[in-house]
Amino acid sequence: MQNASPIELNANENSLGMSEAAKQAIVDSLGVAFRYPDGPRAALINKVAQINGVSEDQVSLGNGSSENIRTVVQMLLDKSLASGQPLQVVVPDPTFAYGEMYATFSGVPVVKVPLTPETYDLDVPALQKAAADFEGMTLFYLCNPNNPTGTITAADEFKAWITHAPNHHYFILDEAYSEYVTDPSFESGIEWIKQGLAENIVVVRTFSKLCALAGMRVGYAIASKEMIATLESFASMDNTNLSGAVAALATLNDEAYLELSLRTTNESRQMVEAVLEELGLRYLPSQTNFIFHEIQGDVQTYIDRMREHGILVGRVFPPVTSGFNRVTLGTPEEMEKFVEVLRLFREKGWV
Amino acid sequence: MQNASPIELNANENSLGMSEAAKQAIVDSLGVAFRYPDGPRAALINKVAQINGVSEDQVSLGNGSSENIRTVVQMLLDKSLASGQPLQVVVPDPTFAYGEMYATFSGVPVVKVPLTPETYDLDVPALQKAAADFEGMTLFYLCNPNNPTGTITAADEFKAWITHAPNHHYFILDEAYSEYVTDPSFESGIEWIKQGLAENIVVVRTFSKLCALAGMRVGYAIASKEMIATLESFASMDNTNLSGAVAALATLNDEAYLELSLRTTNESRQMVEAVLEELGLRYLPSQTNFIFHEIQGDVQTYIDRMREHGILVGRVFPPVTSGFNRVTLGTPEEMEKFVEVLRLFREKGWV
Repeated sequence: MQNASPIELNANENSLGMSEAAKQAIVDSLGVAFRYPDGPRAALINKVAQINGVSEDQVSLGNGSSENIRTVVQMLLDKSLASGQPLQVVVPDPTFAYGEMYATFSGVPVVKVPLTPETYDLDVPALQKAAADFEGMTLFYLCNPNNPTGTITAADEFKAWITHAPNHHYFILDEAYSEYVTDPSFESGIEWIKQGLAENIVVVRTFSKLCALAGMRVGYAIASKEMIATLESFASMDNTNLSGAVAALATLNDEAYLELSLRTTNESRQMVEAVLEELGLRYLPSQTNFIFHEIQGDVQTYIDRMREHGILVGRVFPPVTSGFNRVTLGTPEEMEKFVEVLRLFREKGWV
Repeated sequence: MQNASPIELNANENSLGMSEAAKQAIVDSLGVAFRYPDGPRAALINKVAQINGVSEDQVSLGNGSSENIRTVVQMLLDKSLASGQPLQVVVPDPTFAYGEMYATFSGVPVVKVPLTPETYDLDVPALQKAAADFEGMTLFYLCNPNNPTGTITAADEFKAWITHAPNHHYFILDEAYSEYVTDPSFESGIEWIKQGLAENIVVVRTFSKLCALAGMRVGYAIASKEMIATLESFASMDNTNLSGAVAALATLNDEAYLELSLRTTNESRQMVEAVLEELGLRYLPSQTNFIFHEIQGDVQTYIDRMREHGILVGRVFPPVTSGFNRVTLGTPEEMEKFVEVLRLFREKGWV
């Protein structure tokens, strides 16, 4: 019953695969791969600044956006150690793990604020209270849309909070999935930075999702030029390599690919939503390349059974969201198989 | 007179170009570049551990060895800030700049200890004194063979010093060029780590030189497993990307390429040594892929004239070594051109 190679729907990768233009750009650059990659990195910084409407000194490339997250945590840790002012990291729970992880690596305490019951939204008052109750600096790591829920936090109260926060509150807004968002109530933190409202915000973006370049490790941070200059001190020199830089640039210039990538993910989302509705399984309104959905039963058992049927799905997330699983939206062909297996599970009374 | 593209002999890159096996490995991996690169990274760590005779938990991959240098500086800075014990970085002068640079970025004071007059060796007593005179932790950044001189520090007194240093003295031994060394008085710090003599040493190595992968950004640190675990907290997740990991692994497995790379660099070194002897220009005994040699005159003028003749050579290094220039050993074909231009310069009375 199990395939030789399972269908991997567990890491929010984009199994459409990288664009042909990106592949060709890598191949074309092999002849100069013995040189340091300054030129292609500069070209990518220029393009990233241009598409986001900011200046080049407001962009910091990362070895994946995970490096950008690391630079913020380590910058604030040094600030805390140098000033004697304590630092904490506040994160929603569940969310993407790297903000918490880098903090924990460095001995920075982490406060986890559960998502709201039932709707699994950010609990903004509770997040604010976690900072208000703390004597010292707070770094919020906020993923919007959030992972694993796939849902957005609307701009209204979110923007007012973040753009009016006190100086000792800092924000990483992880917008890894923003290219998938269609909900008009979403607004990127980049807009607030451009409006000069957000000195303490760092928005991070990645080429790992829509652009299908997870293996190439390319991401970036957008912030004020003062913040970017500070963060660059904590980044590794030449952190985006030649292959990553040329592939990212080629993908941004390949509009047909970007349209195809978005379209096939949307198609996959509709397929999964249709089967979930057919089976009466609740799901959250995904604005990403994954869906968080009810599975009516023990999550680890479900994960194991899916693996036995040749499909890898998302891991167990903490109790607040028990009974839910995250499935990555692969290609429509992959999702056909997922739909088939999910229907089989219903026949067996497993979901 | 000037070529459209100058010959670049200014950055110690390996203009032989990357191995065909490495190119093929990158091409072969493009189909999975949409996935996170954990598997190829694990394979590279395994190979690096194997060739160095250490365990996998004694290896930390870097986005170039420059990231490994960064992790050491930032780890010690945090230790300093947390303990209140001051930190300084001590470097020979001149040497490769990144140890100093990451320290300066983070506000860590840097003490520069000039090389000895005439022979341009590390001044070990003066380096030791710089630490002895300081109330706090010292990180030594020592490049062996050194850059820009191309010379080694022999193991005898060096090993005794480093393996018997007090606990608050730390050492980065940058062995970027160690594969070129033939002098039997050289010993790698990796040997001392393997002998358990060196808890406070981190040896860093790179794929940018002999392996010709500067654009791929792959390096590594070797240290005790306790030190590596600490440094990993300051590294970026998945810091070596897919292309870098597969290219590095393929190059290590391509013995014919490694032999060719070493042989052509040696051939280029002999060509340059021959013309320098012919012209009576002093040079230091290079154990690297570059030569530091006399040019009898103002260095910036020499650099400018070389550029006008289609060749980029190394930058101006500080006064202690005035009258010397660093030239990278490119391919024998490139060095033929360099030899021709240098002879022309003699005819003109410029060198």
